[in-house]
Amino acid sequence: MIAETPLLLKAARREPVPRRPVWIMRQAGRYLPEYQALRRGRSFKDLAQSPDLATEVTLLPLKRYAVDGAVVFADIMSPLPALGVEFDFAPGPVVANPIRSRRDVASLPTPSDAAFAPEVLATLASVRAAVSPEVAVLGFCGAPWTLAAYLVEGRGVKDFPTLRAFAASEPEALGALLEKLSTAMADYLIAQGRAGADAVQVFDSWAGLLSYKDWQRLIRPHLESMLEAVGQAGVARILFLQNAPHLVEAYASLPCEVLSVDWRVDIAETQRRHPHLAVQGNIDPAVLLGGPTPTRAAARALLRDTEPRGHIVNLGHGILPATPLDSVAALIDAVHDEPKLTREGTWT
Amino acid sequence: MIAETPLLLKAARREPVPRRPVWIMRQAGRYLPEYQALRRGRSFKDLAQSPDLATEVTLLPLKRYAVDGAVVFADIMSPLPALGVEFDFAPGPVVANPIRSRRDVASLPTPSDAAFAPEVLATLASVRAAVSPEVAVLGFCGAPWTLAAYLVEGRGVKDFPTLRAFAASEPEALGALLEKLSTAMADYLIAQGRAGADAVQVFDSWAGLLSYKDWQRLIRPHLESMLEAVGQAGVARILFLQNAPHLVEAYASLPCEVLSVDWRVDIAETQRRHPHLAVQGNIDPAVLLGGPTPTRAAARALLRDTEPRGHIVNLGHGILPATPLDSVAALIDAVHDEPKLTREGTWT
Repeated sequence: MIAETPLLLKAARREPVPRRPVWIMRQAGRYLPEYQALRRGRSFKDLAQSPDLATEVTLLPLKRYAVDGAVVFADIMSPLPALGVEFDFAPGPVVANPIRSRRDVASLPTPSDAAFAPEVLATLASVRAAVSPEVAVLGFCGAPWTLAAYLVEGRGVKDFPTLRAFAASEPEALGALLEKLSTAMADYLIAQGRAGADAVQVFDSWAGLLSYKDWQRLIRPHLESMLEAVGQAGVARILFLQNAPHLVEAYASLPCEVLSVDWRVDIAETQRRHPHLAVQGNIDPAVLLGGPTPTRAAARALLRDTEPRGHIVNLGHGILPATPLDSVAALIDAVHDEPKLTREGTWT
Repeated sequence: MIAETPLLLKAARREPVPRRPVWIMRQAGRYLPEYQALRRGRSFKDLAQSPDLATEVTLLPLKRYAVDGAVVFADIMSPLPALGVEFDFAPGPVVANPIRSRRDVASLPTPSDAAFAPEVLATLASVRAAVSPEVAVLGFCGAPWTLAAYLVEGRGVKDFPTLRAFAASEPEALGALLEKLSTAMADYLIAQGRAGADAVQVFDSWAGLLSYKDWQRLIRPHLESMLEAVGQAGVARILFLQNAPHLVEAYASLPCEVLSVDWRVDIAETQRRHPHLAVQGNIDPAVLLGGPTPTRAAARALLRDTEPRGHIVNLGHGILPATPLDSVAALIDAVHDEPKLTREGTWT
């Protein structure tokens, strides 16, 4: 028996599909009552560090919604203990000893690839075994710059001023840190592919903090070498950026299969300008707060404005904890109903 | 005796100047030890609501640095009590009764223009009397959308999800609110001009939360009518946006004299593309955290890359509380020293 290629992976390769695949960033998150129930009396770490519990959480949204991807329950910080980084969540990551100098960077160990978050690799394998072949299993990591944001700043602070000051004052130390993270994350993503991930998403959530010129000079080389290494290993790459509309063209020129953009970006224009790429996104997660009616309208507008080929439907950023469950259903239904849509733009 | 036109106003009009003017957003802020001393035992409101104290605060940075503008000490929320809005600072604005419906908007009163922050108008008059004619007195207000962000969300929350949901679900209520704010802020800015402001800055700090298409449909008409009314009254307009690199072209097409951009934007390119506009900015305020050396380097790069004509030097956003005083001095000195700069790009 030949295993079926997941719909999402076909779309990532821009192959023809009977309908667009859909999944939701943070789909196993706090908006789900069954996730909240599992969290009662347990920390995020308790769940993420147990492959059994993490598998259970990963599968929760698939029981409720017909999403086309199962994204492993983990955090972008999960692989960092292998680099000697201690942190906790409060609720965002808080790093015990922020990195502020070349010496801090040099003191980070160089681990073997098996050392990166073995619990995430185990979860991926058990999720792959649990879901049907049509569902894509998705791994992920933080992009070097976005990980550096937490490592240097120490925690999530509006616009990361300490990180930006570090980039201006210590560009060589930053470069050494990004290089280390780039190598580490390439190893980690390749290990995720071996463990069962059909595709991996690279989250560059803080991509947009610098100008294009500074990004090009300081960040691009390290992001590019990481993506190249992952691509050479045959793992499909989804590159996510948000709040960085000035860098969409730059990210589109990086080696990846799928570019995931947020709601600030005209995704139809991104499709037109970069016909070799698949795109992912980009409904504003805040729209879902208003209930099924605006959600359905936003989903239909997205389907109307974009080409089905090479489009993975998603939000422009993670789903918000206050999202009504009905909004998620409305989004999934709109995507599933698209093949019934007539040329006139009304549903049959 | 004919009063001299302030250097900053000449630059705003793109007239020739012997050197570029410079001022700093939040220059009368927490980085100044003398401001911290005045705040001891007093709230922000205590200072801002007393014209005597607000005048004293406004003049503090001019005693320490040769800046070319005195920006009135106030908050973008200052005029809102005239619209029946109650708020406090904790430390950002917190609105007692957020606006969430068309009815909430309709219940806002329509005040006379004299009703908007009379203490700010009194402060402007006393600052104008206190400073030399070469120094520009600057008023300001929040742009309709940025004020709506606080009024709808209730407080500053990352990416203002409630505001974005409101924009998607209640576009007519949002339009009514923006229209009301547009009229009110036009009246307020014109009153500031009469009171002594040489120019006014419109802060659209949250401009970039929406896509260009949604901005164009929902926000632009109200921002444009406000700017037109202020221009017809003969008050010079500085239009500030930040974290909105996808909207720079759109903002450059609005009626204003000066476009103020943040460090994410290539300000030299903005100058080239919009030769009719003066530009303001755009050093990353985080660079100053690193001390005088990176500050000087950033200032010299800015001066080297941009045309002197029609350029007001400033940061790309407000100065950060942890900024060393020496960094500010280094920035001001670099601007003052520019006329000594040789063609080869080195200082004589």
